[in-house]
Amino acid sequence: MTNIAFIGLGNMGAPMARNLVRAGFKVSVYDISLPAVRALAEEGARAAGNAADAVQGADVVISMLPASQHVRDLYLGSGGVLEAARGDALLVDCSTIAPEASKEIAAAAAARGLAMLDAPVSGGTGGAAAGTLTFIVGGEGEALERARPVLAAMGKSIFHAGGSGAGQVAKICNNMLLGVLMAGTAEALNLGVAHGLDPQVLSDIMSRSSGRNWALELYNPWPGVMESAPASRGYTGGFGSDLMLKDLGLAQQAALGVGAATPLGALARQLYQLHQQQGRGQLDFSSIKYLYRAD
Amino acid sequence: MTNIAFIGLGNMGAPMARNLVRAGFKVSVYDISLPAVRALAEEGARAAGNAADAVQGADVVISMLPASQHVRDLYLGSGGVLEAARGDALLVDCSTIAPEASKEIAAAAAARGLAMLDAPVSGGTGGAAAGTLTFIVGGEGEALERARPVLAAMGKSIFHAGGSGAGQVAKICNNMLLGVLMAGTAEALNLGVAHGLDPQVLSDIMSRSSGRNWALELYNPWPGVMESAPASRGYTGGFGSDLMLKDLGLAQQAALGVGAATPLGALARQLYQLHQQQGRGQLDFSSIKYLYRAD
Amino acid sequence: MTNIAFIGLGNMGAPMARNLVRAGFKVSVYDISLPAVRALAEEGARAAGNAADAVQGADVVISMLPASQHVRDLYLGSGGVLEAARGDALLVDCSTIAPEASKEIAAAAAARGLAMLDAPVSGGTGGAAAGTLTFIVGGEGEALERARPVLAAMGKSIFHAGGSGAGQVAKICNNMLLGVLMAGTAEALNLGVAHGLDPQVLSDIMSRSSGRNWALELYNPWPGVMESAPASRGYTGGFGSDLMLKDLGLAQQAALGVGAATPLGALARQLYQLHQQQGRGQLDFSSIKYLYRAD
Amino acid sequence: MTNIAFIGLGNMGAPMARNLVRAGFKVSVYDISLPAVRALAEEGARAAGNAADAVQGADVVISMLPASQHVRDLYLGSGGVLEAARGDALLVDCSTIAPEASKEIAAAAAARGLAMLDAPVSGGTGGAAAGTLTFIVGGEGEALERARPVLAAMGKSIFHAGGSGAGQVAKICNNMLLGVLMAGTAEALNLGVAHGLDPQVLSDIMSRSSGRNWALELYNPWPGVMESAPASRGYTGGFGSDLMLKDLGLAQQAALGVGAATPLGALARQLYQLHQQQGRGQLDFSSIKYLYRAD
Repeated sequence: MTNIAFIGLGNMGAPMARNLVRAGFKVSVYDISLPAVRALAEEGARAAGNAADAVQGADVVISMLPASQHVRDLYLGSGGVLEAARGDALLVDCSTIAPEASKEIAAAAAARGLAMLDAPVSGGTGGAAAGTLTFIVGGEGEALERARPVLAAMGKSIFHAGGSGAGQVAKICNNMLLGVLMAGTAEALNLGVAHGLDPQVLSDIMSRSSGRNWALELYNPWPGVMESAPASRGYTGGFGSDLMLKDLGLAQQAALGVGAATPLGALARQLYQLHQQQGRGQLDFSSIKYLYRAD
Repeated sequence: MTNIAFIGLGNMGAPMARNLVRAGFKVSVYDISLPAVRALAEEGARAAGNAADAVQGADVVISMLPASQHVRDLYLGSGGVLEAARGDALLVDCSTIAPEASKEIAAAAAARGLAMLDAPVSGGTGGAAAGTLTFIVGGEGEALERARPVLAAMGKSIFHAGGSGAGQVAKICNNMLLGVLMAGTAEALNLGVAHGLDPQVLSDIMSRSSGRNWALELYNPWPGVMESAPASRGYTGGFGSDLMLKDLGLAQQAALGVGAATPLGALARQLYQLHQQQGRGQLDFSSIKYLYRAD
Repeated sequence: MTNIAFIGLGNMGAPMARNLVRAGFKVSVYDISLPAVRALAEEGARAAGNAADAVQGADVVISMLPASQHVRDLYLGSGGVLEAARGDALLVDCSTIAPEASKEIAAAAAARGLAMLDAPVSGGTGGAAAGTLTFIVGGEGEALERARPVLAAMGKSIFHAGGSGAGQVAKICNNMLLGVLMAGTAEALNLGVAHGLDPQVLSDIMSRSSGRNWALELYNPWPGVMESAPASRGYTGGFGSDLMLKDLGLAQQAALGVGAATPLGALARQLYQLHQQQGRGQLDFSSIKYLYRAD
Repeated sequence: MTNIAFIGLGNMGAPMARNLVRAGFKVSVYDISLPAVRALAEEGARAAGNAADAVQGADVVISMLPASQHVRDLYLGSGGVLEAARGDALLVDCSTIAPEASKEIAAAAAARGLAMLDAPVSGGTGGAAAGTLTFIVGGEGEALERARPVLAAMGKSIFHAGGSGAGQVAKICNNMLLGVLMAGTAEALNLGVAHGLDPQVLSDIMSRSSGRNWALELYNPWPGVMESAPASRGYTGGFGSDLMLKDLGLAQQAALGVGAATPLGALARQLYQLHQQQGRGQLDFSSIKYLYRAD
């Protein structure tokens, strides 16, 4: 019987923790929001009064927080996870943060003899609720094998990207590319429409040609082309523009750190920044289409 | 029995004309290069002394030329196709040129009562030789039906993009997006590699995630990741960087013409321009990877 | 006594023609707008019924039109300037158009034995009214000397950029750089303001440091920093964003023509395109500041 | 008689400390490089064995270090300046670092009752040697007045940008704009030259028109145009491309921190990154011209 501590019960963390409870794990939960803790407690989790309390006696500690600083505070702070965790606990941070932060925290954990994985996810709140997330994992292979049954209760795909921090790097690379695909696809469709082409016909042609990509095929940014896509329901739901902007910012930080050239990724970040400034940060990230055409 | 005039026997035109001969069509060929004409004549085509001679009595006229001006001269010039063609001939230009030029020539043809299609291709010299090209066609649906048996002898996919010029627009949109996909993919892989990730592992992860795209899956720009790709044979063969630069230029002209914003497409053109200036225009277009990392 | 034909009496052409009348030249004017012709006639010009009529007997023909196609039609069209002009007339086109168009028309003029200059201006409608325009001239030095007294009645600076078309090239290079300066200055000020700096203090520091440039010093895009600038009067007057977008488009065409890399110029054009799409094309071009900060 | 501690005797720090000695101040110096310390000692400074030793009893502490982390370590580390400085010492950091780091260190100093200024410089090694640097200062006005006589011995211009960190912000904004000016100027000149214009003539025209800027007028990037510029002596001396790349990176970090859009600044950083990857990081930053034209 595995005891799990789950810290961070936001839009992603809450449904992930819920799936662990449903899978039969014994789950202690903590969040700074008391209502969030209570909601999980009503579904069978144990409500912890603070992080140290949640972590007490846990076999596996899972965290899902907004940004690097929160994760640093949780793990490295006084009364934090590294102080409170059992000596053989496995630590799994599912937050999307800077690879440098992941490496720094994993190194501090290792200094205490604790194994730690960075395991950022993709799949959004829908995937979190359905238990179909993708985990992109950095850390030791052995630790990943220990974590696998727990991750499997929350997702359906698990990739091993490499050592500590590699999960963050791979996710950041993927999402930088995704930002480029989405804006590039909106741009190509807009150019065609401006010349009088039907966006559906053009989408069909490019989907079966060398312009084919995830955004075009599964998440078409033009309203009406794909019934199931956020573009066809007012750009609601999905993956928010603000979150894409955050990930594109992480990519720029990662690029600055190693002196890598990323001209398209840098420009995609700027486009999402301009998009946000026009008041559209809350809309799904395919709404970048508005930058090209207002109606 | 259909008589075909084929004008323009370059790297693409010659194998296309050859496939028509092999399919049993009666083909008259012309090119400014006499050796090119002779080579086709040895394979069963009739060698014409000039364009007007080739076009004489043809049911279908096909052209495959480098740029707008050549096509304009061929069709609109004195002694050109519009003067020499039979009153019921069908005109099919397979060149990749500016949509405005296609529309202008089609309008002049229509004024003489001649139907004309713009039918740019994708698939490269390999597809031309194998008869597996993709045709992206602009013009009347009825004219396309007349052309279909002829196009089918040279390719395997035929898309109808819309009216006159729409074939050019759709191809330009697709290739602009392709340029963005290729440079974006090289950039994402380089960022990962700069952080110590294995390009093969990262490619696998992104191919099964939202970074998935044609360039990543079928034409990976990183050497060694995909055995069949130009990147794994010194960036030889394939679709040249110079040709990508030309298509990205056509996209910019098309965008200027209608006042469409194409920030990523514009930047992709600049990146290929810089790449060319570094002496790599002859290499396959996936060699844009060199812009990010020299070795 | 010099007879001048002046064709094109728009926002720029009308005050230029007026200054020629005031300087004592005998001026025949023509425009497709009858009221524009009448207004000049009331100030002492001779109203011509068409271009050929205006040009009849003129020593110097001056044109000021919106775009390449208008200039081509005026000079090369049937009944146009090249047919109607006296054999020793000097032709001066002050329009800002593509260098290729200027060269083509000058070559056609030369074939008829006529000297022609491209002489685009800077200084805006204010400079046109005050007679303080700058002329950037392409063509033979001898022809420029003949034109000098006429140009001097409309402007205060005359630069000789080189042979035919060089006036256009120099103006396009200058205005591309100006677009970069203006957007770059707005961007730097916005970055400082976002960090709490006073835009006036930051402008002063950069004006006396290596960030110094024409836009910062004479045309500050931040409201309130420079009382005399359009930014301090709601971005009215000045040089419109639509005109900057046109010039940045000419720069991209010029760059495509020779295969020159212009990454910053290309991006500046995209930024002005996005700016225009937000409905601000009519505002002064320093209003690009709105792209960075809405208030 | 003012006692000064000077820490960091690199290319900039050494000549700055030398000028303080020459001005009659009593200067204690420290650097991790023993030869650097010895060289200053031979000119009349007191050689300190470590930072704490140098700071002991100093009225004013000046530091000139490469990056944020070095400055953090020096001031905040165990045995660092904040521990060792006299209770009424004035701290002046002349390094160019992230504004956030400057603010953090100044706040820590304030908590100990110490006044601190961030005072990054411009003017390069030439200005440091000649004592003609420009200081861009953030912090309290009163502290700046105390520092003024000391700064005046090393430079000729002193700007007060605002509170803590504002000196860094203003310098970063200026240098981001400078990077845009330099690359934009090289780009405009290259476009003209590609069209056959003389770079000298084009520079003259733009210098007297709205393209005028610091880079064009004082630091022309085209070889041969300006005898005194690095471009005319093989791009040696001056301000290195690597340093410009560092400052453009600081600008991107500063922009990420506040969510400011900086499309041109971001692209300029990418261009300098590509330039560095071509092996030209050691050349003067005007050598960005090579990115546009190899010869």
